[in-house]
Amino acid sequence: MNTLINNDNKNAFNTDLDQNQANFTALSPITFLERAATVYPNRTATVYGNIKRTWQETYQRCLKLASALKKRAVNTGDTVSIIAANLPEHFEAHFAIPMCGAVLNSINIRLDAPAIAFILKHADAKALIVDKEFSQVTKAALELLDTKPLIIDIDDPTYEAGELIGDLDYEALLNEGDPEGTGFKVSDEWDAITLNYTSGTTGNPKGVVYHHRGAYLNAISNAISWAMNPHPVYLWTLPMFHCNGWCFPWTIAAMTGVSVCLRHVRADDIFNLIKSEKVGYFCAAPIVLNMLNSSDDTLKADINHKVNVMTAGAAPPASVIEGMEKLGFSVTHVYGLTETYGPSVVCSWHEEWDDKSLVEKAKLKARQGVRAPMLDGLMVANPETLEPVPKDGKTMGEIFMQGNLVMKGYLKNPETTKEAFAGGWFHSGDLAVWHPDGYAEIKDRSKDIIISGGENISSIEVEDVLYRHPLIQEAAVVAKKDPKWGETPCAFVMLKNDTSGITDKDIISYCREHMAHFKAPKNVVFGPLPKTSTGKVQKFLLREQADKL
Amino acid sequence: MNTLINNDNKNAFNTDLDQNQANFTALSPITFLERAATVYPNRTATVYGNIKRTWQETYQRCLKLASALKKRAVNTGDTVSIIAANLPEHFEAHFAIPMCGAVLNSINIRLDAPAIAFILKHADAKALIVDKEFSQVTKAALELLDTKPLIIDIDDPTYEAGELIGDLDYEALLNEGDPEGTGFKVSDEWDAITLNYTSGTTGNPKGVVYHHRGAYLNAISNAISWAMNPHPVYLWTLPMFHCNGWCFPWTIAAMTGVSVCLRHVRADDIFNLIKSEKVGYFCAAPIVLNMLNSSDDTLKADINHKVNVMTAGAAPPASVIEGMEKLGFSVTHVYGLTETYGPSVVCSWHEEWDDKSLVEKAKLKARQGVRAPMLDGLMVANPETLEPVPKDGKTMGEIFMQGNLVMKGYLKNPETTKEAFAGGWFHSGDLAVWHPDGYAEIKDRSKDIIISGGENISSIEVEDVLYRHPLIQEAAVVAKKDPKWGETPCAFVMLKNDTSGITDKDIISYCREHMAHFKAPKNVVFGPLPKTSTGKVQKFLLREQADKL
Repeated sequence: MNTLINNDNKNAFNTDLDQNQANFTALSPITFLERAATVYPNRTATVYGNIKRTWQETYQRCLKLASALKKRAVNTGDTVSIIAANLPEHFEAHFAIPMCGAVLNSINIRLDAPAIAFILKHADAKALIVDKEFSQVTKAALELLDTKPLIIDIDDPTYEAGELIGDLDYEALLNEGDPEGTGFKVSDEWDAITLNYTSGTTGNPKGVVYHHRGAYLNAISNAISWAMNPHPVYLWTLPMFHCNGWCFPWTIAAMTGVSVCLRHVRADDIFNLIKSEKVGYFCAAPIVLNMLNSSDDTLKADINHKVNVMTAGAAPPASVIEGMEKLGFSVTHVYGLTETYGPSVVCSWHEEWDDKSLVEKAKLKARQGVRAPMLDGLMVANPETLEPVPKDGKTMGEIFMQGNLVMKGYLKNPETTKEAFAGGWFHSGDLAVWHPDGYAEIKDRSKDIIISGGENISSIEVEDVLYRHPLIQEAAVVAKKDPKWGETPCAFVMLKNDTSGITDKDIISYCREHMAHFKAPKNVVFGPLPKTSTGKVQKFLLREQADKL
Repeated sequence: MNTLINNDNKNAFNTDLDQNQANFTALSPITFLERAATVYPNRTATVYGNIKRTWQETYQRCLKLASALKKRAVNTGDTVSIIAANLPEHFEAHFAIPMCGAVLNSINIRLDAPAIAFILKHADAKALIVDKEFSQVTKAALELLDTKPLIIDIDDPTYEAGELIGDLDYEALLNEGDPEGTGFKVSDEWDAITLNYTSGTTGNPKGVVYHHRGAYLNAISNAISWAMNPHPVYLWTLPMFHCNGWCFPWTIAAMTGVSVCLRHVRADDIFNLIKSEKVGYFCAAPIVLNMLNSSDDTLKADINHKVNVMTAGAAPPASVIEGMEKLGFSVTHVYGLTETYGPSVVCSWHEEWDDKSLVEKAKLKARQGVRAPMLDGLMVANPETLEPVPKDGKTMGEIFMQGNLVMKGYLKNPETTKEAFAGGWFHSGDLAVWHPDGYAEIKDRSKDIIISGGENISSIEVEDVLYRHPLIQEAAVVAKKDPKWGETPCAFVMLKNDTSGITDKDIISYCREHMAHFKAPKNVVFGPLPKTSTGKVQKFLLREQADKL
């Protein structure tokens, strides 16, 4: 590090000018809740069906939950897990649990019982809050544990199914707490605030630890990056278990906005809420945007205000962006990982792009982009030497991040933490090119790259061509071991509507027509693709299958 | 401090999860410049007459200035002073000087030679950048110094008068530097970034030290508080020497906005620039807004976009707010001190106030308000016990602030620093009431309060009544020693246009008609009021005069 300022030099500016209680406070997003409750006590904080709560009510419920947990012997550095839909209780947990000094662990609701059991055990959860929609899988997970955490039910009156499996109910626990609680003080902004397990396409999930400082800064980075209005109305389409909803619970508190909660991501609910609650902002995967695009025109009618959409996970195709723009929705493409508090890279828009054709715009927007306002470093570099690649839009390198939006590390995993931070940069594992304008564009996951005859082949590039084939519904490309070339691309393809008559030869020749021949798959396998609970294709299974062909 | 999180407890979340180069960066607003230059290199950063510079050019000029200063032996912890109008060079100094590890000291351009000499000596300035408009007073100040700093002229080609008094010219110094400089790294966000001397109505000015962390956070707090658009166009009506222009040089960099520079605050220039540059934001004292209100209608015509104004220093009267609103300008009232990075308190608006009458709105808006988004604590409390006063809108207390928007302390002044922070809160010296909705409203400076027969009399309240008298141009009220009452109010009044025939008795009886009799002045003195260089009435002189009556 090229340190121009050297603190070993005593000077007048660092003499008798120390930190004290008057001039220093640890950064924590919990302070946003306290401010919202005191400045705008009567503004709506959460909406869920007929339930509306103000910021003052929400703050008091959080104080009660925090003090009730403390009374139940949840202590500093303990984990409290939650498995729930995007409910107001889930929103409250983002504040109340860190307020008592504990660490929030929001569990992916799509996991199976063994995965949930692994997490509860690894995180050493002292308490678990369960939405009754997920009572069955949770019950099965708990049976796999020797020591069971305190189980707290969320008894959503609007949800008919599911059962109560807990020691007590969320509202009953709240009533054990003190609404006039002493509030909280975080003494060290480096203290953990949440724990998020990576979904991981192989092996056991890793526990990514966030701290108060990073959560505070990413919450603000979201607001600046999106240039949010005061009091934004935000719809909870993105799961809160996903990198803490990209830190948006804290962003919405900082902006004293409204959290419109949503149990299930359904087009009718989304459009109706956009209209009835005047939703201005939501985050969603491209697949959700696609669902909205293809939904009934009557649902789409009568939206007369601006709606801003943040999307990530895959580059949004031009058709999706076009559809959204026709609805008057403005799409921002972001990128990040669980390890970077969700989106830490943004395809920041340039006004001079406004006049480009839709195809060109979509191409520009499909790039992952540049560092978000509070990310301190971003580069595309050689994974071995950490030498930045030239900004030529062609040379492939790995994406590296640096600074306050990078996790504290992996829980109880010093070796993997060390590897992830080797050389003073966070290794994303994503392979990208760096365009002349400084925008990064992902080409592949590093472990998914195919090296054939010494040439790199991006599996994403081959998949893009396959997706353009009119009869292909889904496609994934992996490396297959090859005695001559080292590796060759092998395609796994699911066709639309039981299309028959199309052969592997047809697919291969289609690919050869649309890309360099060496990049075209040598093998094609038909059938459905194996996926993780979050919908990621499990390429390690496909690789095993490919090598057996 | 009620610390719920205790770091003496080792747990899994603070084991093997330390800070490192990958996951921690010191907060510094200089990073905003670097981001603006890399993400939006070709966007305009500064405009001054015909001179326009992009963010890339500005960044390169800053790198050059920083490296040139280092070559000239300006080192870590050294002070570099500047005395200049709101010029692009002044904007650049906010980045370039801290980039070389030095501390920026921007001097009030209205000071006299002895005051400037005092500051240069107290700050131990190693270099001084001088705008030729202020060459004469600077020359006189330098004659009072034994050791002279390196003098650098800003030779503004659009300014005819003044002379060059320096060792070299700003552009020549830049050319000694390296545009490919290594950039910078601040190793400790607690390091000083700037030094601002309080104007002070008595005694020597105090040197208020800001740090990188606070400057970063207040820059962002400004943007959030104002819910600024992306790429805001900001007009420099507020002097940059005033709390570093309330930290707006850094805000504008964070938002990749445009700084429209301005030598003199004149209505025609302001209106013309608002129209030609599509200015969306500016900060100004109420007196400037008054000047804009009363200027020619032809100047005001043809403004077709929204303009946001931030004002502080005195509560804006209803007539000023009304005039601004007629122009389509939206006024935000803020409050702060040099010690709190400028505005750290904001009269945050509530939508439910929209429907109130203009008089009611002005009354609500005249209040100082609530903590800004990144201020951590604000209270109105008993100055002795620090017990918060009841939120009854009546009980008077002192305003106290706490947290990251409070200065590092006073330079070379540990005793005064300690007093300012006594009890873990910054003592503002301003007396206020706390309204039931949590908004603070200033009633007086603590040293200006009049205690008559054991009752507090707010000098501001008496002045407000005097200002409503149709023949009074200016008024100030101070305590006069009194053998019976302890103190009594003494009014100093300047009448409009040599009005004759009005007597002290008329004024006193007018006051008695409009307020409690004990609050009415017992003495009235006619004549002009003594003021500081920043236009503050020098009440200590009036007090001396009153006691001699």
